[in-house]
Amino acid sequence: MFDPTHVDLPTLRKRAHNLRWATVPPGVIPLTAADPDFPCPAPVTEAIAAFLAKRYFSYGPPEGLPEFRDSMARFFQEKRNIPASPASILPVDSAAFGIYLTCKAFLQPGDEAILFDPVDFLFRYAIEEAQAKAITLPIPAGSAADFGRLKKLITPRTKLICLCNPLNPTGKVFTKDELLELGEIACQHDLIILSDEIWSDIVYKPHSFISIASLDPGFCDRTVTITGFSKSYGLAGLRIGAVMASNRKHYTRLYEASLHQSTVHGANLLSQVAATAALDHCGQWLNEFVSHLHAMRDHCVSRLNRIPGFACGYPEGCYVAFADITGTGRSAIEIRDLLFDQAKVAVVPGLPEWFGPGAAGHIRLSFATSKAILDEALDRITGTIRNKTP
Amino acid sequence: MFDPTHVDLPTLRKRAHNLRWATVPPGVIPLTAADPDFPCPAPVTEAIAAFLAKRYFSYGPPEGLPEFRDSMARFFQEKRNIPASPASILPVDSAAFGIYLTCKAFLQPGDEAILFDPVDFLFRYAIEEAQAKAITLPIPAGSAADFGRLKKLITPRTKLICLCNPLNPTGKVFTKDELLELGEIACQHDLIILSDEIWSDIVYKPHSFISIASLDPGFCDRTVTITGFSKSYGLAGLRIGAVMASNRKHYTRLYEASLHQSTVHGANLLSQVAATAALDHCGQWLNEFVSHLHAMRDHCVSRLNRIPGFACGYPEGCYVAFADITGTGRSAIEIRDLLFDQAKVAVVPGLPEWFGPGAAGHIRLSFATSKAILDEALDRITGTIRNKTP
Repeated sequence: MFDPTHVDLPTLRKRAHNLRWATVPPGVIPLTAADPDFPCPAPVTEAIAAFLAKRYFSYGPPEGLPEFRDSMARFFQEKRNIPASPASILPVDSAAFGIYLTCKAFLQPGDEAILFDPVDFLFRYAIEEAQAKAITLPIPAGSAADFGRLKKLITPRTKLICLCNPLNPTGKVFTKDELLELGEIACQHDLIILSDEIWSDIVYKPHSFISIASLDPGFCDRTVTITGFSKSYGLAGLRIGAVMASNRKHYTRLYEASLHQSTVHGANLLSQVAATAALDHCGQWLNEFVSHLHAMRDHCVSRLNRIPGFACGYPEGCYVAFADITGTGRSAIEIRDLLFDQAKVAVVPGLPEWFGPGAAGHIRLSFATSKAILDEALDRITGTIRNKTP
Repeated sequence: MFDPTHVDLPTLRKRAHNLRWATVPPGVIPLTAADPDFPCPAPVTEAIAAFLAKRYFSYGPPEGLPEFRDSMARFFQEKRNIPASPASILPVDSAAFGIYLTCKAFLQPGDEAILFDPVDFLFRYAIEEAQAKAITLPIPAGSAADFGRLKKLITPRTKLICLCNPLNPTGKVFTKDELLELGEIACQHDLIILSDEIWSDIVYKPHSFISIASLDPGFCDRTVTITGFSKSYGLAGLRIGAVMASNRKHYTRLYEASLHQSTVHGANLLSQVAATAALDHCGQWLNEFVSHLHAMRDHCVSRLNRIPGFACGYPEGCYVAFADITGTGRSAIEIRDLLFDQAKVAVVPGLPEWFGPGAAGHIRLSFATSKAILDEALDRITGTIRNKTP
């Protein structure tokens, strides 16, 4: 199901935007945005097709379709060990909007929020759009989190901590001990925990994913858990994610800030139907996808480490490799340009605007493709770098 | 196509939210939210089904699918006589978000924006969410617009005027002379014109719809034209609308404010495909829908005027009747409660929070249903009011 015959390049060249196949020149392989090259599982489109038959697309409930809320709550209960109820679930436009919404709901101008570095740009973006101040806690690739340092960053203005678990771009999966320490600090300082778990299905054994809200009722009460369907099921273009808050007051704040009640925003019906099918009927597909990704991770990282000047750890989760390229003597943007121009492979450079200052000296490559495409890209990268470095 | 056999009540009772069939007690007929009781045209679901076949839902382009932008631009050119280009089109989550977005993009805290009274609550809501001040221009049901009075409302802080054409809830369709006067005032005072044209397909002869942006290049340059697919095609649950701005600087402001570039928001791929099919392949269906609505309008208004204490003009556009019920000696909320409890018909009362203070003494009823359902509702309303009024 995840071999080259299942990558439909003509369709990807039309449909895969956001730095991918539809936006790069012919011949370039994009290992950029973390979006799979494989089609979504068939039960997803079967469910949409079944919903289409009646041809009714009236206003949905602003708090979400009951079947979506039920399935999402069951997912949190059964797969994440969080005592979620359907009433704690709000479907949203995307996990990105979930992050934005949580910052909007809980941050006032002048407040402070803590985010990791490096981490996806959306956290800083969402904090700053709420006119709050983003305070960074460095968690360099391959390191444990230093929550002793976190405590020193907290001030009376600190309201929120952004946990990205698994952590994009380094692929770190937080351990139980780390999460317990983080949760305790949040409780001591009365902080909201924003737990972005969009990558939580993509974790490689022996690592295992733990939701911070599952560890303690007190943690659960102060956590907004966010997930989405773009990484696990390739549904980015359907714009669907969910936020979960067990605390009723928090849920109400999120709901009001979502603008769903006014109809300004709302989760698309077909996307909720698609996501429900993904949760209910695609477990086996997801297992096979993760198995494929595990093999690609091992292969990709091992090949990257054979390139002169490259050094890459094995990500514990996510389907991106985050390679240190400082050994080449070139900057991330220089390597990005060299690979784009000469290897005809697009990667994401570790620029502060993408991942924060802690990403300097790194490039990020997605390996959610077939082995054939990945090998072709790695052959070209290897050849180009070997050619260009002393 | 618009007879009772095409109203699928079991499906509506599951799917029609926002005060409609799925949210009222069994036995109640909802003539509330302006959302049709008929299924959408078949080419819409056929287009979605065709798109599903490949099972790829990658990130779409943040500025919208080329086919959607092309069709929407052609619509504005051919049906609205506006020189729109695909580059001037931005698909958005809904027309409601289009209104919200325009206020967000062009209003600073403390600015003033003019809106009509009565008018849909979304205008005041969007203005106030931008922390601007909403200034109302009364346009009572059945009246011409008094733009002499408009001039007196303009101050140095006035930045935007909200034109809702056709005007929900009164069904007024603005004449060419009115639009010329409004456009001239906007030019003189350098105001942005937000032209909400979501109802512009639903206009009854001999009235005809004119887009303000079609009248003069200077008007076009300062107008943001907004439309959607919920009223004409019943696609509210697909959450799709469009904003159009010929002025490149304005377009850029709207695009930046939309948060599409960051992926926080974006228009759903399937909804853009659905909307493209609606524009390209559903002209005949729309003509038949408007013919049906024309007959329902005449029937509904004539029956309302035979109810003691009710007086209702013929809306020129929209599919809502806006009945003056002051002759009953009761308030709008009292009539709403009476009809809900005894006639088992749900209507929208003319409360300030729905339509502004100018809606007092009125109720709004949607007639986008079959003649059989409309007659049943009007029989019950007539019986209840005859029973309860002296």
